[in-house]
Parts: sequence; structure tokens; C-alpha cells
Amino acid sequence: MDLKNLLEKNVKEIDKVIMSFLPDSHSIKEIDLLYKMLREYPSRPKKGLRSTLCLLSCEAFGGSYHSALITASALEIFQNWILIHDDIEDQSELRRGKPTLHRMYNVPLALNAGDALHGKMWELLLKNREILGDTKTLDIMLEIIHMIRETTEGQNMELGWVYENKWELNYEDYITMVEKKTSWYTCITPLRLGALIADAEREKMDKMIKFGKDLGIAFQIRDDHLNLVEGEGKYGKEWAGDLFEGKRTLQLIHLIKNCESLERERVLEIMSKRREDKSKEDILYIFNLMKKYNSLDFSLSMAQEYAKRAKEEFYEIFGDLPNTEAKNYLEEIVDFMISRKW
Amino acid sequence: MDLKNLLEKNVKEIDKVIMSFLPDSHSIKEIDLLYKMLREYPSRPKKGLRSTLCLLSCEAFGGSYHSALITASALEIFQNWILIHDDIEDQSELRRGKPTLHRMYNVPLALNAGDALHGKMWELLLKNREILGDTKTLDIMLEIIHMIRETTEGQNMELGWVYENKWELNYEDYITMVEKKTSWYTCITPLRLGALIADAEREKMDKMIKFGKDLGIAFQIRDDHLNLVEGEGKYGKEWAGDLFEGKRTLQLIHLIKNCESLERERVLEIMSKRREDKSKEDILYIFNLMKKYNSLDFSLSMAQEYAKRAKEEFYEIFGDLPNTEAKNYLEEIVDFMISRKW
Repeated sequence: MDLKNLLEKNVKEIDKVIMSFLPDSHSIKEIDLLYKMLREYPSRPKKGLRSTLCLLSCEAFGGSYHSALITASALEIFQNWILIHDDIEDQSELRRGKPTLHRMYNVPLALNAGDALHGKMWELLLKNREILGDTKTLDIMLEIIHMIRETTEGQNMELGWVYENKWELNYEDYITMVEKKTSWYTCITPLRLGALIADAEREKMDKMIKFGKDLGIAFQIRDDHLNLVEGEGKYGKEWAGDLFEGKRTLQLIHLIKNCESLERERVLEIMSKRREDKSKEDILYIFNLMKKYNSLDFSLSMAQEYAKRAKEEFYEIFGDLPNTEAKNYLEEIVDFMISRKW
Repeated sequence: MDLKNLLEKNVKEIDKVIMSFLPDSHSIKEIDLLYKMLREYPSRPKKGLRSTLCLLSCEAFGGSYHSALITASALEIFQNWILIHDDIEDQSELRRGKPTLHRMYNVPLALNAGDALHGKMWELLLKNREILGDTKTLDIMLEIIHMIRETTEGQNMELGWVYENKWELNYEDYITMVEKKTSWYTCITPLRLGALIADAEREKMDKMIKFGKDLGIAFQIRDDHLNLVEGEGKYGKEWAGDLFEGKRTLQLIHLIKNCESLERERVLEIMSKRREDKSKEDILYIFNLMKKYNSLDFSLSMAQEYAKRAKEEFYEIFGDLPNTEAKNYLEEIVDFMISRKW
């Protein structure tokens, strides 16, 4: 089975857990609508990277697939509720190839559905009691709380920059933001949770923080790269959506640092416009400047650096574990995340 | 000590827990901003009804004040994060006498701060481990999850009516919505949590559902009444904010059911306008019609009915308990909630 098949198989298992857990229908029309909204994002096609990282980490440390299934599913639910809110915050139009939830309905309903789904995540996590016992259930919750803290702090960095109309950022600002906004929930927490469930040593879990940070950074830079070079079809988001939304990407920070001052003025003028006032020509202007100043190449090479470090850290953590199937898949998934093309 | 003093004393204790728990400052400006936002609503003046209900219920059943303090504080944090999101959903302008969080900053930042505060609520609930042990900590979480489910379902009923522009509602629709949106988090869950911490019998906890529903309904109808008859000063929200926001209150449902068809057309036309398109004259027109058709009196007498039932249920649950100070305060607070003037 190749990685793609493994991901598909895991997504199927996770979907089974989530879809049988989320409520199905209600006699009151407006509550039935809520249930429909709760199921909307989870039912869209997804890669299931985060849940798979959790499952594989658990198995690599000798734990069972089954023991991590609820927790891995809760991680997917986390991603779904935070994306609902994220899409409102960023005024995104597409999510996984379809309209975002607040565009399908409206902002108030989508916001409330995100909160309801957040509650559902905790409800699912409480189901760990039956298979893992009370103490481990609570220890898992501590990890989830840490993840929420980091993610909302990273999100606040990004939203704060928008609020202050701040564009002249350092690479370090960007890296810190990504560590918080992406690395924790995409890599660190899934890996740590798998290890925790499998009773891995604390020392290994601690090392996962640095590893997950570097992996997440490489992943995010590549994600931003794909956003710039891929169309909607393959990638499931609108082309250059990050530029329309005013995201501070590494590519853009590099461009602002390196272009001529007249160009910089024009770039900042465009980026400071509200999303609906930006024209396709505006975005193409910036995109072409990025090519002129090699901002995409610069960013890819920075991603490569983080990827290289992440691989080294991977071996430090997993190198001395038995050569199981799970461990091999884990290495494959790391390779995929740092060199993904979809 | 009268009830007002008791509430003030409790608010002080709760504030101590919350303010020493919430993070204070951060070297990164945008994270520091988040921390400031987390503290904004909790630091505004409040009555602390919900936390006090929890503390008194615990004491009335023979539990200690201290054992319920973390849980009561978590209930206040719940109210704060849900109000942040509620204010966005309803486009409210004032909260506790000051601008709402999304008007102080913007919608994306306030939305994210609400999520961060939601995470903080769970972090605080996990602190129960040290004083109540793992099992009770998790049992408390189950109650909180139930509360989130009911609250978001009730909220979805209300937001769904706005989405569908649905005005011709029955009193039963309104009652179900209020039970879910208000009764659970204002009465049922605080009372049940206090009882749970004090190891009260399951039977008493079950009876609290009906009691809390009726108490919450009486409380909400009165809250909506105050919204119509009180100015900003005393009440801390804008005058007739519910009408500006398009809330389906009992008063309005009664009016729509009872006025002449030409009046009804005009009422629906006004209520269907967006908040920013409603004039003060529009709102006064509806307010005067409510007086003409005795919608306020009708609602108050319905509130009285629920209040009467709630009092009977109060005695059923607490009547055979020892006559402690806590029990007496509990009765006072119930009386206050069903006849409050502020």
C-alpha cells in the first residue's frame, strides 16, 4: 500500500468515527440546519494528514491503531471547527473546492456552528475514558488545550498584522507565527498525542516540539507556494487566495524586503486594499514581481532548509525504534509534507 | 449580608480566580493584544448570577465553597466567550455598558479571542483535577458539554429564524429556544454542577432540569422586558437593542399575533430591515404598538406563571435540605431572577 492509499484508508476510518458521532437530524428545522452545518466540512474530501500523523506515531511507539482512533478523529474535528472560524476571519471564499460555510449560509450561523463543533470535539475526547481511562483522557486534553493556545496565538499574530496594517515584517516574525498557527496543530500535537497514547518516553515527546515546528514550517511555506502557483482544481482553494486575503506569506515578506521602493509602495497599496477592491490585475502585478525578485525560489529554498532539519530530527526521535510499517509510513508522510505538490 | 453584597463578594472571589489564571502580558505585541482582549469582558462589571448559583447549590447540598470555585469561575468564562461570539452574531454595539469587543477591535480578532477564551475555559476546568480528582473533573466536563450543545442549538434556532426571515412564531417555539439558549447555561448547568460537586443524589440533579428551564424562561422574558423599558445607564445595553437586532422576543411574537394586518405588515417590514437601516422612529412605532396591544403585560404575566412554577420546583428540590445560609440565599436569588429590575 502506498502513502496515498494509506491516507485514504485512514480518512475512511476517521470519517466512520466522526459521521456516526455527529448528530444526524432533528425535528426542529433550525436545529436540523445546525446538524447539517456540523457535517459540511467533515464530509468534504480531505487528506487526513493530521489524524494519520497521530495514528502512525502511536503505532510507531508500539501502541494500537484502535487506541488512537478517537483522538485522531478529534484532531480532524478540531481542524474543521477552526477552519470554519478561520474562513470567516479571512473572508475566504472556497474551502476544499466548495464555498466556505459562511458563504453557504451566513456569518452568524457559521460562527455558531464552529462553536458547536468545538463543543463536539470535547465530547468526542471524553469518549476516550472507556478505552484509555480517566487519567490518560485528561492528559490528552492538556495537549489539546496547549494546541488551542498556540493556534489562537498564531492566528492573533496574523490577524493583528492585518488590524495594524503592518507589512514590514522580519522572517523571524513569520516563522514564529507559523510555528504557532500551523506547526502545533498540524505536526506537534498529533505526533505527541500518538506518543502519549502509546506511553512513549517524555524525552521523545519533548523532542517532537522542535521536530514538529520545523516540519510545520516547511509544510506551510510549501502550502503558500501552492496557493500561488496552483489553480483551484487541484488545490481546492482559489488561485492566489492568500494575496486576495492579505496574508503575510514568506514570499510576500521577501518581496517587500527586496523590491524597489516605488514597487514597494504599489505592493503595499494593493495589499492594503480590502479584498473586494483588489483586481486580478493587482494580484498579477504582485505575482510577477515575486517572480522578478525570485521570492518563490527564496521561499522554497528556506522550506528546504527546514525540511532538512526536520528529517534529521525525525531520525533522532524515531531512528532507534523497531522498523515497523508505521515508522516507514511516518517517514514517507514527512517526505510528502515537505515536498508536496497537492 | 443581603443578596447584593453576597453577589459582590462572590464576583470578587471569581474575579480573583479568573484574573490570576488568564495570561497577563506577552513580549510579542499581537499576542499581548490577544491577552488584553481575553481580559476585556471578564474585567467589566457583572452580577455573577451563574457562578453564584453554582456556589450556593454546592453549599446547599453540603459541599464546600472552595470545592466549586474553579467550576463556578469556568462558568463565568463560558459566559464571556459565548457573549463575545454572540455580540458578533447579533451585531450588538454595547456589552455591560461599553462597546462590544468586535467594535473595540474588529470581527476577526474578536472571533479568535472568543475561541482562545473557550480554550481557556477547558484549561481552567482541568485544574479541578487537583481538588476533585480525575473522575469528578470529567463528570463536570460532561455537564459543560451538554450546556454547550443546548446553548448552540438555541442560538441556532434564533439565528435560523433571522436567516429564514421567519416572524410568525408560536409561543412554544420561543419557549424551546429560550430553554436551550438561556436556561441551560444560566440555571440548569450551574445548579447541577454545584450539586454534582457536593455529591447530591441523581434524582435531585434530574429535577433541576425542569426547575432550571422554568427559572430561565422567567428570567429571559424579564430580561427582554428590561431591554424594552430601560435605558442604557442602568441596564448596560442599548435601549431596545433587541428590536434593532431583530430578536424574536415574546413581546414581539405576541404583537405580531395580535395586531391588525396593516400594522403587522409595517412591523414585519421594519423588523426585516438590516439593523443599520432601522430608524429610532421605526423602533418607537413598534414599541408603541406593543403598549397598545398589551404585549408587555402579556409577557410579564407569562413570566409570572413560569416564576410560580419555578418556585414550587425549588421547594421540591431544596425543601428537605437543612436550612442553611446558602439555601436561604438560593431562594433569594431565585426571587431576584424572576422579579429583577436591573
